[in-house]
Amino acid sequence: MSDAQKYPLSGITVLDLSHVYNGPYATFLMAMAGADVIKIEPFEGEHLRSRGDMGGAALPFAMLNSNKKPVTLNLKKDKGRELFLEMVQRADILVENFAPGVMDRLGLGADVLHQLNPGLIYGSSSGYGKEGPYRDYPAMDLVMQAMCGVIECTGYPDQPPVKAGAALCDFMAGIHLYGAIMTALYERERTGVGRTVEVSMQEATYASLASNLGMFHARGAAAPSRTGNRHGGLGISPYNVYPTTDGYVVLNAPGDHHFRAILQVMGRSDLKDDPRFVSRSSRVANFTDVDALLESWTTTLSKQEVADLMLASKVPCAPVRGLSEVMNDENMHARGSLQWIDHPEIGRVALPHSPLVFEDSPRKPIEPSLPLGAKNDEIFGKWLGHSPEELQTLRSDGVIS
Amino acid sequence: MSDAQKYPLSGITVLDLSHVYNGPYATFLMAMAGADVIKIEPFEGEHLRSRGDMGGAALPFAMLNSNKKPVTLNLKKDKGRELFLEMVQRADILVENFAPGVMDRLGLGADVLHQLNPGLIYGSSSGYGKEGPYRDYPAMDLVMQAMCGVIECTGYPDQPPVKAGAALCDFMAGIHLYGAIMTALYERERTGVGRTVEVSMQEATYASLASNLGMFHARGAAAPSRTGNRHGGLGISPYNVYPTTDGYVVLNAPGDHHFRAILQVMGRSDLKDDPRFVSRSSRVANFTDVDALLESWTTTLSKQEVADLMLASKVPCAPVRGLSEVMNDENMHARGSLQWIDHPEIGRVALPHSPLVFEDSPRKPIEPSLPLGAKNDEIFGKWLGHSPEELQTLRSDGVIS
Repeated sequence: MSDAQKYPLSGITVLDLSHVYNGPYATFLMAMAGADVIKIEPFEGEHLRSRGDMGGAALPFAMLNSNKKPVTLNLKKDKGRELFLEMVQRADILVENFAPGVMDRLGLGADVLHQLNPGLIYGSSSGYGKEGPYRDYPAMDLVMQAMCGVIECTGYPDQPPVKAGAALCDFMAGIHLYGAIMTALYERERTGVGRTVEVSMQEATYASLASNLGMFHARGAAAPSRTGNRHGGLGISPYNVYPTTDGYVVLNAPGDHHFRAILQVMGRSDLKDDPRFVSRSSRVANFTDVDALLESWTTTLSKQEVADLMLASKVPCAPVRGLSEVMNDENMHARGSLQWIDHPEIGRVALPHSPLVFEDSPRKPIEPSLPLGAKNDEIFGKWLGHSPEELQTLRSDGVIS
Repeated sequence: MSDAQKYPLSGITVLDLSHVYNGPYATFLMAMAGADVIKIEPFEGEHLRSRGDMGGAALPFAMLNSNKKPVTLNLKKDKGRELFLEMVQRADILVENFAPGVMDRLGLGADVLHQLNPGLIYGSSSGYGKEGPYRDYPAMDLVMQAMCGVIECTGYPDQPPVKAGAALCDFMAGIHLYGAIMTALYERERTGVGRTVEVSMQEATYASLASNLGMFHARGAAAPSRTGNRHGGLGISPYNVYPTTDGYVVLNAPGDHHFRAILQVMGRSDLKDDPRFVSRSSRVANFTDVDALLESWTTTLSKQEVADLMLASKVPCAPVRGLSEVMNDENMHARGSLQWIDHPEIGRVALPHSPLVFEDSPRKPIEPSLPLGAKNDEIFGKWLGHSPEELQTLRSDGVIS
């Protein structure tokens, strides 16, 4: 279906039954690496598409569905499942993130598909995995953050815990799923045989709490569950979010040389021998004084001024950037990992390319996400070889739309 | 070096120069998938090891370095670089997460290594990428969270923003790096040629803010930067963290049927026709009343009791679990993705296996992380073929330890 080998995944065909963030992120990475990704949706569209812009879903849909070929297919009809099996015979990879058991109930479980195509890589993702005591628990990002310990570790110690603003459980699962599938694809080149691989949001999130788990291991019940913006192990100062005239900056300056540089930037080198500040342990013991000293200076400047001055002296520092700044990031736009695209449905927006950079290959041009079923004729007609008459019958029988 | 093909990456040799979380997580996944991972460290150990247990680094080190073969090598000596190049000739993959430019300054850049071994996959990870205006900015997780917008989106709207407790920028980069390397490994099987791939923490984090970016796109300046534990789009109620007798629970119940089930569980079906609660939009408009109603009930029970009752009625709910509960999670232990291991250095601890589950292969047994340089004799002696006398000279010359 593809042009000649040009990108790492040129020539690979992916059947994508997945929805919202988790699976679609995995298949987005495949599409941007050159695979043909056929996005198979029910007539109402996958959950994220069918939300329209209610709740702000339009941009996320566009972000995750560039360069995919959307088709509609009714898997609840026998003929729909037949068409699906025709596609399976020609595909390399299948991705789904239904609740465990859904594909089996459709008669489309991994065993059935592997009998038809032993080379297929069957990749699935779920909240808690296909087997295990929690397999049937609901798995939204908020719920997973609670179960995985992320919420307990986020926020100020004297206040209720708070969720992380990023949907990290969803995306951690999606990128792990990509990794598992690529591993199996490599293996297939050696063995000729495909595999079933799976990822759970719970397992994909676990390692990201390494620092917090380490502190708990080291200190037990004495370890604080959460430390606001202070160091998770309360072992570094300055380490905090500091107010400025127009927002906040973060500083993370573990070394004595960092602190001497900070004093110099602030014009307070007179404090360089102050016993409260001479060593990391003394700064940690006097963190309130350290933070007050910093604040007395940061509140006189803008966040970008503070960051520029600190960075010029090699002190790890950054402005706390809002989403407008993030979308307009000059580094990502310079690198081509964010690009301004005129999207036919939602206008001019910044769309991400893949974070996976393959040097010596050009980045595949971003093709904006397409309307529901836009590739029905191409996929069911040209690729599978059904005639216009057959497609008409499929439409009138409610198999495709 | 390996036993017969048994795991997906059996027979693959990885040279791992990486440190702390980002690179070591990528190579941990490779080791658990069957690769031989040679962990090459300076004499003082990589940063995470050399911290010892100061700041709680012991468990994170053990979590990320199972099944690796640690060697010491002084890359600042000519002879050290020679030994390294001997290894490169026999390796499939190299992983490093030094600051951009470090490997080039050592004379060990990707070009040099590919001349020696055109099949090598050279994978690197950094904060902002090897090229671009921010390439030399410092890149710790806190700083990256600020730059990527994660901090701005986390916390309560009437309070300063707060970092996510999980080190998500570090781990997002690590797993993306794994995915990029596996893609190149697959491609090498087809083309015979290795690749340089790279990942930046900034780019790897971007997509995880899809919901927040979407809300900003839809509502512009009217969109709240952060919403505490309420829905990011303020479009669902109940959706919050609720207090109980012994901690908190989360509830995320978008559907009218969810709310009717909640009322039944609470014994308050008398409210089912209350105009404040009959539809999603009315609940969102009256979210304070919704939350107060929920709280009046959740505060009478333990978090597990609330969660059990809600889950039994298919309402998405979970206890906000502390780290002790997370480490002891029955689902992950039942699945083998967490295992109790008697670690020779730090005692009995829960260690994670890989989140990448390859069905029909047994999980590779977890081998606890080893002391610095534990495999010097095996790697420099047996594998590279240097005699005991040569190893002795290398030791006395300060090339290995």
